[in-house]
Amino acid sequence: MQRKTILLDRARLEPLLPLDECIVAVEDAFRAHGEGRVAPPGLLHVEAPEGEFHIKAGVMDLGRPFFAIKINGGFFGNRANFGMPNIQGLLLLCDGENGYPLALMDSKAITVKRTGAATAVAAKYLARPESTVATICGCGTQGAIQLEALLRLFPLKKIHAHSRSAASMEQFAAENALRFGIAVHAAPDLETALADSDICVTCTPAKGALVRSEWVRPGTFVAAVGADSPEKQELDPALLKGNKVVADILDQCLQVGEIHHGVAGGYLRAEDVHAELGQVIAGLRAGRTSASEITIFDSTGTALQDVAAAMLVYRKVAETTDLQSFDFFAG
Amino acid sequence: MQRKTILLDRARLEPLLPLDECIVAVEDAFRAHGEGRVAPPGLLHVEAPEGEFHIKAGVMDLGRPFFAIKINGGFFGNRANFGMPNIQGLLLLCDGENGYPLALMDSKAITVKRTGAATAVAAKYLARPESTVATICGCGTQGAIQLEALLRLFPLKKIHAHSRSAASMEQFAAENALRFGIAVHAAPDLETALADSDICVTCTPAKGALVRSEWVRPGTFVAAVGADSPEKQELDPALLKGNKVVADILDQCLQVGEIHHGVAGGYLRAEDVHAELGQVIAGLRAGRTSASEITIFDSTGTALQDVAAAMLVYRKVAETTDLQSFDFFAG
Repeated sequence: MQRKTILLDRARLEPLLPLDECIVAVEDAFRAHGEGRVAPPGLLHVEAPEGEFHIKAGVMDLGRPFFAIKINGGFFGNRANFGMPNIQGLLLLCDGENGYPLALMDSKAITVKRTGAATAVAAKYLARPESTVATICGCGTQGAIQLEALLRLFPLKKIHAHSRSAASMEQFAAENALRFGIAVHAAPDLETALADSDICVTCTPAKGALVRSEWVRPGTFVAAVGADSPEKQELDPALLKGNKVVADILDQCLQVGEIHHGVAGGYLRAEDVHAELGQVIAGLRAGRTSASEITIFDSTGTALQDVAAAMLVYRKVAETTDLQSFDFFAG
Repeated sequence: MQRKTILLDRARLEPLLPLDECIVAVEDAFRAHGEGRVAPPGLLHVEAPEGEFHIKAGVMDLGRPFFAIKINGGFFGNRANFGMPNIQGLLLLCDGENGYPLALMDSKAITVKRTGAATAVAAKYLARPESTVATICGCGTQGAIQLEALLRLFPLKKIHAHSRSAASMEQFAAENALRFGIAVHAAPDLETALADSDICVTCTPAKGALVRSEWVRPGTFVAAVGADSPEKQELDPALLKGNKVVADILDQCLQVGEIHHGVAGGYLRAEDVHAELGQVIAGLRAGRTSASEITIFDSTGTALQDVAAAMLVYRKVAETTDLQSFDFFAG
């Protein structure tokens, strides 16, 4: 019986979570959810004076059950006030059969990669396979992983990088062109970029429509990734009307995310949402069925993805030596 | 700026949480809640195949804000199946100003002591000061701390120890008589014990009325501590009718706890609950106002108590050397 909790810092965790394997694990997690083999994950928000704590928890059966809970503090004055990251957090993985705390780890790489992985999985079912041009709105860490994850599945040749900051766009374009050996351009004019794009990913902290409905051409796949709290929004809610909208988890998307704004604005009803991603993966609902339809993935981020990614890390840890661990129950 | 998360095992934590100081800290926490200075704490349950994870989280201002989240696994076949404790868990304390994870610790001593402390605080306002005889239903770890906490505030001379197991009662009586130098007797007949008692504490895993309403004599203070999930119950709900009922946090008591059963059975309405404990401590509602009234404290256990106890530990840690710590964000 294990008697210690493994401790993983950012540096040790990073190489234990290869993006390719994360994509497979996230697809499997959503499939299990679509097939009704996973209980709905839990969400809790706790307000603090200058920020908030986002808590996501879920159990998943991966041969045997595992439980993960991710506790992220979001304090958007941190960088300016304290020189600290705005988001910091930990993930606790427990044995789902007896509750034992198996591992504690930094949550950053898990959040970043499982979010990129979900977009890639959604794109696999909802984007045109021959997609070659993508627009990435949001030129931060998440924008880069979104691009990397899409490149694992699509033969992208040209990327439009859009941001409110010219410097961010230029830096993102230069870094990623070099890194992936493809054309990446700064795209200050989003309308022009979208007129040329097969795929559009939004991963910004925007609190209002960034992507106008009329800018999105037929056949486009749009992944809306940024909105993870009720006031955040990236898409014109009119875009949700009459197009094929897929939620990661519908209950969550009705509380936060683009579907939430669409329903509030009367552009669609919950029952107009085409499917949850897991239902599409499981073959219970169709993915893309024509080259001309517009498909939209509302990604609010789920504990399912966190459990899947944490398990991937933990499985590799079991084969790793020289790890730190701690016995919390000694005494 | 702190750059590491302190790790505390059960043995190192225990002496950092003296019961007397825990009682004061818990009273202060409830007072702050009663005065509206604390946001309502959060609760989340996640089901696993053979058990469940209970998550309690809250923020409290103690000079500056602190956040604590306690994650307890409850797996009631653990002892029989794996030789492991049925309840195991960790508590994470974060800086409430920037989200930094300050400390991770075993949750057991915190849960046990903050629960005993809440009963003592409630008894201070709701029991007769000259109480000398108490009945403790439930002869486990929690029963012992309940007795210890009451002894800090009341001149108890005689204790009736009640349990379904004769062996548990006898062992509890022998151990606690020796430990506290007072008379502790096994009390298989609860009706007789209550006829002689000023205070009654229930801290069992019972799922049905244990204390009959007609057994409770005028002037008694009853603390119902065991019920922390909807199916658990220790009091005859008729006891709640017409007596002075105080909740730890009313919203929680309406979901789990004795008030929940009383309301479901039509014995009282939410508005019949006299007060929340914090309102009594803050002087906004009366405590006991006559020697003959029956007072009842419904203790479901709150994140407020956990934050208060964890802060007490953390303040002492700051003065302690030779501690283990870990930098989760290194890399």
